Amino acid sequence: MTTDSPEEIVTAALIVIGDEVLSGRTKDKNIGYVADRMTEVGVDLREVRIVADDEDDIVAAVNALRTRYDHVFTTGGIGPTHDDITADAVARALGRAIDVDERALDKLLEIIPRDEMNEARLRMARMPDGAVLIDNTVSRAPGFSVDNVHVMAGVPSIMQSMLDDLLPRLKTGTVMQSRSLPTNHREGDIAGPLGELQKAFPDVSMGSYPHYDRETGFTTTVVLRAREAARLDEAEARVRAMLAATAEARR
Amino acid sequence: MTTDSPEEIVTAALIVIGDEVLSGRTKDKNIGYVADRMTEVGVDLREVRIVADDEDDIVAAVNALRTRYDHVFTTGGIGPTHDDITADAVARALGRAIDVDERALDKLLEIIPRDEMNEARLRMARMPDGAVLIDNTVSRAPGFSVDNVHVMAGVPSIMQSMLDDLLPRLKTGTVMQSRSLPTNHREGDIAGPLGELQKAFPDVSMGSYPHYDRETGFTTTVVLRAREAARLDEAEARVRAMLAATAEARR
Repeated sequence: MTTDSPEEIVTAALIVIGDEVLSGRTKDKNIGYVADRMTEVGVDLREVRIVADDEDDIVAAVNALRTRYDHVFTTGGIGPTHDDITADAVARALGRAIDVDERALDKLLEIIPRDEMNEARLRMARMPDGAVLIDNTVSRAPGFSVDNVHVMAGVPSIMQSMLDDLLPRLKTGTVMQSRSLPTNHREGDIAGPLGELQKAFPDVSMGSYPHYDRETGFTTTVVLRAREAARLDEAEARVRAMLAATAEARR
Repeated sequence: MTTDSPEEIVTAALIVIGDEVLSGRTKDKNIGYVADRMTEVGVDLREVRIVADDEDDIVAAVNALRTRYDHVFTTGGIGPTHDDITADAVARALGRAIDVDERALDKLLEIIPRDEMNEARLRMARMPDGAVLIDNTVSRAPGFSVDNVHVMAGVPSIMQSMLDDLLPRLKTGTVMQSRSLPTNHREGDIAGPLGELQKAFPDVSMGSYPHYDRETGFTTTVVLRAREAARLDEAEARVRAMLAATAEARR
């Protein structure tokens, strides 16, 4: 990438749906996974919301985020039970009709014998008008995309399979590159000069992350992020020099 | 608790602040912890938002949630560096002035020698007008409460220490009791009758959580939650009977 290449910024938000995450019963594993994958493919995850199994709450979150970001992902609430209301909520948010989709039903019938198909399981084939199916290689029941809203399962292995199917057809941007610089400095020792360097490099995001260990006390990792490698190199050299000078001054 | 005791519902939201969580670099450990503690003390965690180190985003989240829920917690962004902007954002959201607070400064001076106090570290003593300090037994630098907004550190051990100090003075409600019923049924086998039971027990939340294992396929845990033990007993008996009848029917 050269310094004058156009950078493309593509943004996303994630909505995690489920009472069980809010009650603490289930510890979410999807947020960190989606965050990692978005970073890899060049999509900026800008916001995450965890909401209850409540149709109004889901509709409000979908509508707040779909106009603000390029992509909105949801996880959870697409099974066969009464608390699985994501598909209906997304249809309502987008003003679309929703009904059993024959393509989705065919996928379900790949693993569910016809005599075990019941009203509850049929719910998993409900898709809003115009839905594009998202493949599920684990247990078949598909997710779907409508406009820029992408509806996935909550079970991590299934969500990951859906993301594999979905990602290749999503618009992505320039990948953000990063450099991680671990140091023994405490944050307060470097905060002043790091803040000055951030001002000098407005296009390089400089983060400072403290670690605390009962034995060794505080240490800090400085993380630099930018879409342009040349600027990142420049910033890294300046930050490394600052870290060395601070170490010298503290001897 | 008797069946006619008044039930008190107290609600909360959590705002996790930090680019590093959205980029995937840091895997959040605070959401699950806060969720568990809230459930223990009888506070309904209703919503979580993860937002970037962006003042406008933080202000918007604080203002959206503080009017809607009894308590709003924040984690992250209260260190000494330029990306630590939570205190200023919360002050702006609440329309309060913010400046160095002598009580907070005293706490910092318990661990930072006077000759190492600098402008950056002084930032950790900035508190909005009217702040009540939240103790940090790990590294001293305090969090604070203003109105119903409670600002805590992002480092998990420090956040946990702050929550220990904060919780005893927070208004809490009737503790939600729960029963967890693991079954070998697939969700689709019990979804119909479970939905009917949910209608019969509107005051008992019935959740259905699928587990997927490559070897054994899908199993399900049914979780019942209510504030009233007697109703929970009744619902549990009915759900257990339904699970047994379904097993019998599938023989």
